[in-house]
Amino acid sequence: MESSKYNSRLLEKAVFEFAKLPGIGRKSALRLVLHLLRQDREEVNSLATSLIQLRDEIHHCKICHNISDTEICSICSNPRRDQSELCVVESIRDVMAIEATQQFSGLYHVLGGIISPMEGIGPANLTIGSLTERVASGEVREVILALSATMEGDATNFFIYRKLSDYPVKVTTLARGVSVGDELEYTDEITLGRSLLNRTLFEETLQNNKR
Amino acid sequence: MESSKYNSRLLEKAVFEFAKLPGIGRKSALRLVLHLLRQDREEVNSLATSLIQLRDEIHHCKICHNISDTEICSICSNPRRDQSELCVVESIRDVMAIEATQQFSGLYHVLGGIISPMEGIGPANLTIGSLTERVASGEVREVILALSATMEGDATNFFIYRKLSDYPVKVTTLARGVSVGDELEYTDEITLGRSLLNRTLFEETLQNNKR
Repeated sequence: MESSKYNSRLLEKAVFEFAKLPGIGRKSALRLVLHLLRQDREEVNSLATSLIQLRDEIHHCKICHNISDTEICSICSNPRRDQSELCVVESIRDVMAIEATQQFSGLYHVLGGIISPMEGIGPANLTIGSLTERVASGEVREVILALSATMEGDATNFFIYRKLSDYPVKVTTLARGVSVGDELEYTDEITLGRSLLNRTLFEETLQNNKR
Repeated sequence: MESSKYNSRLLEKAVFEFAKLPGIGRKSALRLVLHLLRQDREEVNSLATSLIQLRDEIHHCKICHNISDTEICSICSNPRRDQSELCVVESIRDVMAIEATQQFSGLYHVLGGIISPMEGIGPANLTIGSLTERVASGEVREVILALSATMEGDATNFFIYRKLSDYPVKVTTLARGVSVGDELEYTDEITLGRSLLNRTLFEETLQNNKR
């Protein structure tokens, strides 16, 4: 019997719950749970209640679908953000990644995934309808598609591009090319080929580096 | 400000709590928390309450100090276990490891660590007093020292050996030698030297393999 291994059903239950998390196996789960057992009661309660609160009280922004403590997130409600630029991303994590670059001062739109017939995700499962509404409202002048550089990403880009073709809005995508710090020798040929086709004026590069 | 990165204080708090766990950094914590956000409310509650229950309701066995749901653990209270053999281990995890071998049918004694002046752990911090009491009670005939094969383990072994020298009890330690499956070429010289000194009769090996 499995429970005899742990000698405690409470311990077994906690390990079982932890092991459900992605990337955490039975052994890691046991290590984490035994660590928690050595901590103060308040410490464990603090972790547990933060999880319950998170799940119960968190909102998704009504405008951009980003995670938020309030109905409208702090980015959408910030008057200093450029209301005319809209960056379309797959997930909350991409918002964080782009915010970390400090190169974008517009607003976001979180799709909640990309079109993937293999995983049964179609346009209706994403927030594309709400994106079209935002564009239709007229304030947006540029939509930047910042999706994954994969087949699914490209398909989703194209789908959104077609949806928005009725509106007077500029649709752009992230530049693709050799990663900063990469050696040419190890860059894959498709990326290298694209970066040749989309070569930029050296003067522009100099200006970008100054920013 | 850090909270602006997460765009939610609830999210930030949960990530902060997860990142306190050993081996989990900020990035992994975020990944785990975002995973939990996608789960049902019941799923998250189940994890949280299992942690609180574990911390609030778990016991340590009054006899062997192993983890237990009851005052006396299921090993100590099992009449089929050999009451005359006592295996001394550092931690709960070692009990699990030895139980997994299915080669030991006696009882355990969990020390709660080993003597380590560097970490400020002395004999008084361990359950050595309670071990002596168990041996003094007279039922135990053999104490098997199953501590780590390190300097600290050896020192603790020696300390316990001296403590028990007044009692008519056999004190043994785990065999040290070449690991099963190891190639000689890659075995360190101390282990190899010891395994030569402590060589065993081939007939005994044959018998052990049959068990």
